[in-house]
Parts: sequence; C-alpha cells; structure tokens
Amino acid sequence: MGSDRLESFSDGVLAVIITLMAFELKAPASVAWSSVSHLLPLLLVYVLSFTFVGIYWVNHHHLLRATEHISAAVMWTNLQLLFWLSLIPFATAWVGAHHGQALPAATYGVVGLGAGVAYTTLGRAILRANPNDTALARVVGRDIKGPASMVLYIVSIPLAYVSPYFSYCVFVVIAVIWFLPDRRLVKETGST
Amino acid sequence: MGSDRLESFSDGVLAVIITLMAFELKAPASVAWSSVSHLLPLLLVYVLSFTFVGIYWVNHHHLLRATEHISAAVMWTNLQLLFWLSLIPFATAWVGAHHGQALPAATYGVVGLGAGVAYTTLGRAILRANPNDTALARVVGRDIKGPASMVLYIVSIPLAYVSPYFSYCVFVVIAVIWFLPDRRLVKETGST
Amino acid sequence: MGSDRLESFSDGVLAVIITLMAFELKAPASVAWSSVSHLLPLLLVYVLSFTFVGIYWVNHHHLLRATEHISAAVMWTNLQLLFWLSLIPFATAWVGAHHGQALPAATYGVVGLGAGVAYTTLGRAILRANPNDTALARVVGRDIKGPASMVLYIVSIPLAYVSPYFSYCVFVVIAVIWFLPDRRLVKETGST
Amino acid sequence: MGSDRLESFSDGVLAVIITLMAFELKAPASVAWSSVSHLLPLLLVYVLSFTFVGIYWVNHHHLLRATEHISAAVMWTNLQLLFWLSLIPFATAWVGAHHGQALPAATYGVVGLGAGVAYTTLGRAILRANPNDTALARVVGRDIKGPASMVLYIVSIPLAYVSPYFSYCVFVVIAVIWFLPDRRLVKETGST
Repeated sequence: MGSDRLESFSDGVLAVIITLMAFELKAPASVAWSSVSHLLPLLLVYVLSFTFVGIYWVNHHHLLRATEHISAAVMWTNLQLLFWLSLIPFATAWVGAHHGQALPAATYGVVGLGAGVAYTTLGRAILRANPNDTALARVVGRDIKGPASMVLYIVSIPLAYVSPYFSYCVFVVIAVIWFLPDRRLVKETGST
Repeated sequence: MGSDRLESFSDGVLAVIITLMAFELKAPASVAWSSVSHLLPLLLVYVLSFTFVGIYWVNHHHLLRATEHISAAVMWTNLQLLFWLSLIPFATAWVGAHHGQALPAATYGVVGLGAGVAYTTLGRAILRANPNDTALARVVGRDIKGPASMVLYIVSIPLAYVSPYFSYCVFVVIAVIWFLPDRRLVKETGST
Repeated sequence: MGSDRLESFSDGVLAVIITLMAFELKAPASVAWSSVSHLLPLLLVYVLSFTFVGIYWVNHHHLLRATEHISAAVMWTNLQLLFWLSLIPFATAWVGAHHGQALPAATYGVVGLGAGVAYTTLGRAILRANPNDTALARVVGRDIKGPASMVLYIVSIPLAYVSPYFSYCVFVVIAVIWFLPDRRLVKETGST
Repeated sequence: MGSDRLESFSDGVLAVIITLMAFELKAPASVAWSSVSHLLPLLLVYVLSFTFVGIYWVNHHHLLRATEHISAAVMWTNLQLLFWLSLIPFATAWVGAHHGQALPAATYGVVGLGAGVAYTTLGRAILRANPNDTALARVVGRDIKGPASMVLYIVSIPLAYVSPYFSYCVFVVIAVIWFLPDRRLVKETGST
C-alpha cells in the first residue's frame, strides 16, 4: 500500500516520456522523399527508446509489486531513476538527428548507464526497506541483467568514437537481454 | 487487481496523446483568414483522431474491466498498442498540414492498422491469461468490429494514392462502426 | 468504483492541459523589456485558463464523488468535455499573442461555451445512469452556475467584435461566479 | 480516502512538469562544442529544478498521507501550489538560456517563493480541515524548513541584481535544507 503513489507518479512520468518522444517526430515539411527520409533514423531510435522505457515500466512494475514498505531512500532513488529516464527523449532526438556522429551515441550510452545504475540502486534500497522479504531478495539477488547491461553501456560509450553504429548494436543487444529473460522468468515461476 | 497499474499507465499515455494532439493546433500568426483557414483541416483531423483515441480508451476500459489476471504477454502487447497509438499525433499533424497528399493519408492508415492489430492481439493475450473466463471469451470472441476495421484500414492505404479523401471517408466509416455498436452492445447486455 | 478509471483518465488529461499551457510561456529571447513585456498578456490569460481548468477539476471531482454508476453515455459525454477542454491551451496561446483582436477572444468564448455545454450534458448523463440518487439529483438539479455561464459565454462571442476586452471581463465574471458559490455550497452542506 | 484524487491529480501535474522541463533540452543543431556547450547551464538548472519538484513531491506525499479529510480550501490551495510549480519549466528554460542575467534568476526566485508560500498555506488548510489530528499538527507545526526557505527566496530576488550566481547559490542552499532534514526526520521517527 505504501508504494501506491510511488507507482502512480512513476507511471505518470514514464507515460509522458514515452509520448513526448513520439512528439519529436515532427510532420515533415513536404511529402518528398528528401523530407521524409530523415525521419527514418529517428523512427528507428524511437522504437529502441520506447522498448527501453517499456522494459523499465515492466520491471519497475514487478519490483514494486513485490514491495511492502518504502523508505525515504526508495523515494529518492526512484526519483533518480526518473531523472535519467527523463533524459531519454533528449538523447533519442539527438541520435535521430545525428545518427552518424559519436557524441550523441555516447550521450545515449551515458543516459542508459545512469538509468541502469539508478535502477540497481533502487532495487537495493527497496531490499534494505524490506529486509525479511525473501521473495523480493530473490528477485533482486538473482538480477544478472542489471550488471550485464551496465557493463555493456560502459562499453558502448568509447565504442561510439570508433563508430556510433557499433554502439547502436550494443543498445539492441541490451534490449534483447532484458526482453527475453524477463518473459522466461515469468513463465518459470508462474507468477505475473 | 493485477491490471490496476496497467490501466493507470495506459490512461496516462492516452491522456498525453490526446492533449499533445491539441498542442499541434498552434496559435495562428495573425487573425487574417489566410492564417486561420489552414487550421481547419487540422482541426477536422484532430476531431477524428480524438474520436479514435476515445474509442480505444472506452474499449480498453471494457476489456480490462473483464480481466482478472494479466501476464507478461499482456503487458508487452499493451505496450505495443500504446506504441502505435503514440504515433497518432504525428500522423494527425502530417495529415492536417498536407491533407491533399497521398503519403500522410496512407501513413495514417498504417498507424490505424498497427493499433488495430495490436488491440486484437491484446484481446487474445488477455484471453490466454484468463482461460476460464467465459464473460471475457464472449467479449473477445464476438468482436467483429476489430477484423472489419483492420480490413478497412488495409483498403485505406492504397486508396490514398487514388485520392486521400477516399481514405478519410474510410476512417470516418471505421469510427462510426466502433462508435455505434459499442453503445448498442452496452444497452443490450445492461452492463457498463 | 465504476468511475475510478474515468476519474483517473480525466485527471490525466486535465493535468496535461494545465501544464501544456504553461509550456506556451516560452523563455523570452532576451531580458530587454521589449522581449519580456509581450509575455504579460499571455501570463494573465494563463492565470484565467488555469482557473477555469481548476474550476472544472474541482466540480468534476464533486460530481463524480456523488456518482455510483457510469454508463457508456457518461463515458462519451466525459470525452466530449475533455475534447473542449483540450482546446483551451490553443485558445489561451492565441489570445495571449493577439489580445487586441476579436477572433481569438471569440474563439476562447466558443471553447468555453463548448466545455460548459458538455459539462451540463455530463451531469444529465450521470443523473440518467443513477436515477434513484437523490443527493446527485440535488447537486445537478440546483446547478444555476452552468446555465448562467453558458448565457455569458454566448454573450461574450459577439461582444468580442465590439471589443475583445469586454469579452475578457465576461470571462472573469464567469470564473468569479463558479469560484464563489462553489465554496459557499461546500460550507453550507458541510461536505467536501 | 478523500485525498486520493487530489494526490493523483497532483502527481499527474508534477509528472508532466518534470518531463516537460527535460523537453526544453533540445537536441543541439550540431555536435560541435559551440553547439553543445550552451546546453550545460540548462542541464545544471534542470538538475536543480528536478530536485525542487522532487522535494515537493516527497513532502506533498508525506503531508497528504497524514491527511484524512480534505476541504474546498485544501483543493484550491493545492491548485495554487500546482500553479506556481507549473511556472518552474518556464523559469528553468529562461535561466538556462540567460544564466548571466539578473531578471531570469530573480524570476526563478519569485516562482520558488510563490510555491513555498502556497505549500505553507496548503499545510495550514489541511490542518484546519483535520483539527484533531495530532500527528498532522506535529508535521505541520515543526516545519521550520518552509519559513527558512521563504526567507532565502526573498533574499535571492534582489541578490540577482548584484549577481545572479549569488541567487543560484541560495537556491542550492534551499535544496540542501529540504533534502537533508527530510531524510533525518524519517530515520528519527521510523516512519516513511
């Protein structure tokens, strides 16, 4: 019960983030191919960012469903997670406009890393606020996707200066890592 | 109970989509007819898009009220539906600015088709997560509006290249199909 | 219970409307008086529009707290109300940019009238869905603010062509009418 | 229970405010340092404003969790608080674009002062609506952070005309004041 408002506030922020990103897809000035074609990279990176925010929403949902108590530390680390996620529309728009450049791709990696670190911190803060909750300890404890994606984000940042397209491949790998095991986990345990 | 957060997140996204579309109605630079008149097509397509999002909200509400359990597949297909709906403001703005062109009208049809397919997939995912729910099976099973509107959206896409105005007529027909039977259904069964 | 999601969706839309209006207050290009001064009329009309949306939120809250059942007609008239309210940011931005012109002021009056008619229709739809609810019947039945403000909005539209400033005075009168009796009513009955 | 919708509406507004601010971080026109460097002050003031809105969310959460009844006065003072908070994205964007000027810094101080006064007024309105609630009286009564930050905001306004950077230092001090004691308080009392 304590986490109701935390969840609804987080849902509100995630809902606005997802929709604002789509708002960056401005209607092209004409219907000529030259006007339309530059939308395609932005659309692709929008699909990627939408997937990331969706992954966070699903995992945040699982994590907080398993939570009975929240502390001030939980509220503040949750705000920290929302802060990093709120930068995703900016990073998305920048990558969409300059997909061949290193700096936007590296920035996208930094934002992803920040969100990943905040999410891991949130999991630990929730665990500290619910020390006797073994189900929660199991969910947080066996998280290997978090550390793995943080390593990959760290790799993606310098890699952008070799080629930003390598970084994009790393981002897709991270999305796949989160997407697949999550569905398997749910089937395994039979819970939703 | 399991679907509470799914509903509130979806409501948040739909609320932002509806309001962002209105935000595309920029205040004209002057009050001269030449400045104001180009707003009228955008206002008309806004009314159409608002109606579509309203239809989705009402039907999503009915579908999830009948749902007891949600699964990971329900969460992901719901996100897929929200993805397609999040592209409606883009398609609306584009059609509003270039209503005489084929490409924006065809894009609107593609977005509508994507949302329709995702909604049908969502209904089936919910049914799989609640296999013994006969009330739900009846709601999802007798859905002929979904397939009918998907066929019409498919027709609307090439039709835009004959004339985009034919596509707009198809969109209005789709809205009417969803609007009317929904009210009749409610009266028939006496439920809300 | 039936109205939970209706309320949360409406809250979402109203929250976005209120915040998007503030987003029209663009940071001036410089700190010179000539850049800053044109913000003042927009700020004033923002205060007025914020007050209107606040009045709708408070009254919507009272109306739906008194409601047990909702029908399809309630959902659709509520969407109609949200449609008109979603045009307020547009009307606000236009009046803010061209406060000396008749057409934006008249448009603001039309939007206000549309919202007023939709709100009255919503009250009646709720009453039809809850025919035996005497508390609700009393709330809806003794509403004289609704008809009064509709008459005033109708007056404000042609009045804008005499002078838009007369229309603004009418809008302020409407806000005062809603604001004062609402607080008195609550004190009278002792309910919130 | 009476405060549910007040909380969800406030959450919606705060969620949009936080995310709209990030939307002011427009993707730079190029990846050259000259294009990117002007984003840094905006990013810094965004971090500050995000922190302020986060502080309001956490405190609003604590205040309303302790509340059983709400009155019309609570609803209206809450709307007043949301009004001032809705101006934060504007003040943030302006300071971010003209961080060396006095007027935007002073405006930021005025907006902060307005929000502070509204929050204090809200606390008192809630107390009047729940006269026998000693836990609430303790929370509101021992609030020294509110008066302290109002004094600091008042100081920050003329100080901007000495140097806006002095005002920014005052804003950081205010954030620290709210942030630290809040966590200490929670640990002390053992409540969340």
